[in-house]
Amino acid sequence: MPEIPRRVAIINDASFYVGPHLARSLAAKGHDLVLGDPSDQLVAELTKLGSSVVAVANARDISNPEASTHLVAAAMDRFGRIDSAAAASGRVITGRFLKSSVEDLEAVFKGCVEAPYHFLRAVIPVMVEQGEGQALLITSAAGARPTPGAPLYSAARAAATMLARNVATEVARNGVQVNVLGTNFMDFPEFLRANGVVDAESRAKVEAQVPLGRLGTLEEFAAFCMPYVDGTSRFTTGQFVAYAGGWV
Amino acid sequence: MPEIPRRVAIINDASFYVGPHLARSLAAKGHDLVLGDPSDQLVAELTKLGSSVVAVANARDISNPEASTHLVAAAMDRFGRIDSAAAASGRVITGRFLKSSVEDLEAVFKGCVEAPYHFLRAVIPVMVEQGEGQALLITSAAGARPTPGAPLYSAARAAATMLARNVATEVARNGVQVNVLGTNFMDFPEFLRANGVVDAESRAKVEAQVPLGRLGTLEEFAAFCMPYVDGTSRFTTGQFVAYAGGWV
Repeated sequence: MPEIPRRVAIINDASFYVGPHLARSLAAKGHDLVLGDPSDQLVAELTKLGSSVVAVANARDISNPEASTHLVAAAMDRFGRIDSAAAASGRVITGRFLKSSVEDLEAVFKGCVEAPYHFLRAVIPVMVEQGEGQALLITSAAGARPTPGAPLYSAARAAATMLARNVATEVARNGVQVNVLGTNFMDFPEFLRANGVVDAESRAKVEAQVPLGRLGTLEEFAAFCMPYVDGTSRFTTGQFVAYAGGWV
Repeated sequence: MPEIPRRVAIINDASFYVGPHLARSLAAKGHDLVLGDPSDQLVAELTKLGSSVVAVANARDISNPEASTHLVAAAMDRFGRIDSAAAASGRVITGRFLKSSVEDLEAVFKGCVEAPYHFLRAVIPVMVEQGEGQALLITSAAGARPTPGAPLYSAARAAATMLARNVATEVARNGVQVNVLGTNFMDFPEFLRANGVVDAESRAKVEAQVPLGRLGTLEEFAAFCMPYVDGTSRFTTGQFVAYAGGWV
């Protein structure tokens, strides 16, 4: 394998979900990092791994358009380029379609479609200008199948996937990659809480819904993300892959 | 990252396409290997990387059912287990549907559907018995969209994808993963020859069909395959991903 030069990666939310794990994996693979809202402890850990780290405050919520522009500005100011950019976002409203309101739909749309829109709108022009770059949206497997109890959320996630696929098509000629990974049944506190997991019995009930019979770890999901952001593999774009234990 | 114990991987065809690259990447990540038809030079290289390598002769053509049973028997004899198993196969017959014969269809079906059937039929029972394992079919992006000039091939590849997805569903409860990666426009001698690439001009003509504007390398495709076979990420199954420069 040829030696890979130092690369620059943005992660919108380094405080939550797969963000910290992705930051560690990218640091271990020679990336400098621009991170939304990392903990001091995470920054220290990444610095120890050899990364130059720029922490951007109040950047994790990309439904606020300024979050993405701040992340991009920080990357350009400090490093002058962006090799990869990963964003996770979402707004879940559960409940049946028949009990929903258009305000619910608008809130979900803002969190699940406008948020990645703002992120792509900020990072893609830089990548087009560079003639290369890897953008990754981390969304939900709910966008790939009807999801009982979360119909608006499922629809909005599907919109984000198709948006990303269209962006991928638009900028492929510029050497830019755009892909989407959609998760479900991941083992992290907010999922457990949202699904009423409080003990072994309630956990088993949730695990029984997963074909692979367990919840996924954020560490293994970070490993799965790597070829989409680490520069080792640059010939796929416009793909959606579900990471959900076989649920999709 | 926790240290990963030594794993055992099968690659049906280590003489061709992504096979040698995958073997090198897996060797570098601590795998012992059971390989169909590797060159002596490749075996020496892999051994130097610390792998125990079993070479199985006449195993690369998995349209012959014995090829897969020999690979599995060799793995079980020497190592007593199979952690991952990757197979690439295919039979291309080009030409318009209106000029085709049912014999063409049968030949394509044998090479593109029966071949992975035999492979999965041989490796999956071992993985089910183990309660874990990663099977990967390497096919063609032609299975994911109508492909002018190769309608029978496209249809047969689609059948293989759906077969793998069904197998994935059937064995998810047993902890076994089955995924499919489909390529097109990869830079290797047989593709170049089949597409009449003999100089810069003819190469440019083929590259112009690829949204990303170039051909893919086998090295970067091997990097992309890794999370499906190296044990670092075990929570996705039943997925098809196109690796084709944005063509799908």
